[in-house]
Amino acid sequence: MPHIALNTSEPGIRGLLRYRPETGRPLSEFVEVLLRAPSTLTSGERELIAAYVSALNDCRYCTAAHSACAAAQLPEGMALVQQVRADPGTAAVSAKLKALLMIAAAVRESGSAVTAELVAAAGAAGATDMEIHDTVLIAAAFCMLNRYVDGLATVAPDDPAMYEAGAQRLVAQGYLLPRAPDHRQESLPGTHSA
Amino acid sequence: MPHIALNTSEPGIRGLLRYRPETGRPLSEFVEVLLRAPSTLTSGERELIAAYVSALNDCRYCTAAHSACAAAQLPEGMALVQQVRADPGTAAVSAKLKALLMIAAAVRESGSAVTAELVAAAGAAGATDMEIHDTVLIAAAFCMLNRYVDGLATVAPDDPAMYEAGAQRLVAQGYLLPRAPDHRQESLPGTHSA
Repeated sequence: MPHIALNTSEPGIRGLLRYRPETGRPLSEFVEVLLRAPSTLTSGERELIAAYVSALNDCRYCTAAHSACAAAQLPEGMALVQQVRADPGTAAVSAKLKALLMIAAAVRESGSAVTAELVAAAGAAGATDMEIHDTVLIAAAFCMLNRYVDGLATVAPDDPAMYEAGAQRLVAQGYLLPRAPDHRQESLPGTHSA
Repeated sequence: MPHIALNTSEPGIRGLLRYRPETGRPLSEFVEVLLRAPSTLTSGERELIAAYVSALNDCRYCTAAHSACAAAQLPEGMALVQQVRADPGTAAVSAKLKALLMIAAAVRESGSAVTAELVAAAGAAGATDMEIHDTVLIAAAFCMLNRYVDGLATVAPDDPAMYEAGAQRLVAQGYLLPRAPDHRQESLPGTHSA
């Protein structure tokens, strides 16, 4: 049962985004760009990084949701996701993606764990600066999202079919929530809280 | 020196937001709402939570920047920020804020470290569900931002005056960057990557 009284029964982050649309909207926009905007990393590869970090953080909801999203968008499907979650070093992914997954694991530990050596190895395997940037930001973002989902004890359904259906919906429609009012435009002078 | 070649010499997260405005804009909007939108927690209290979590994460740039922002917006100034960073349990803050700071410290460790007991203690000290929600999300957000800033080895100036000037600017102008184009509206059917 969630730690606070939400206003919907939606599981995981979905209930949180709807409980607090003022933060939910920019968060959903951020995740939409991070995982789905045009990039030299495919959405499947980016979802794989998200699933891997979520698994390392033991976040059951995010791991299941983003594993399903990765599987739905990678030709190799869930078999590859499971390989990566078990050991990226032996998974059937490119040397570049292996090096990026090592950076993601370091980010999960702490920012300072990302060494110049890890970054140089990714560069030597063909990763661009933008791909390294995006990998660090995806891994960091899931260190937030995993804590948000579990820190409020949201519900994580057991049925894998729920996550597969959610992945189909996300692949088709994306992560965006409707836009919340801009508090800076709506606040009148003097009514803005400290 | 940063791990990647940024396009400005701006320190900390500022250079990152400008390097990647597509993610920088929704991130800045998220932080603007989280720390500055109308709330029963003052901006000073919210910046204090941000500074405390950043200090626990050993992120020098974020700790200095948000300590300065908290000090600029709290009547007790930097002395209180330093008390909280040293030990929230003995700092001169309300019982409610102490309980929320304990939740923030738990979030930093992991989502599952936020126990029903910590949440009940905050409720007993007068915290609302929304204040508990926002505390969890602020702490989680700084677990992302600290990793983003340090994972790319951005520059953190030594001069405290730089952070004080930055705090004055943020208090006056806020965190928002100019809006980036919406990739979903701009992409034509069939041109959207993976």
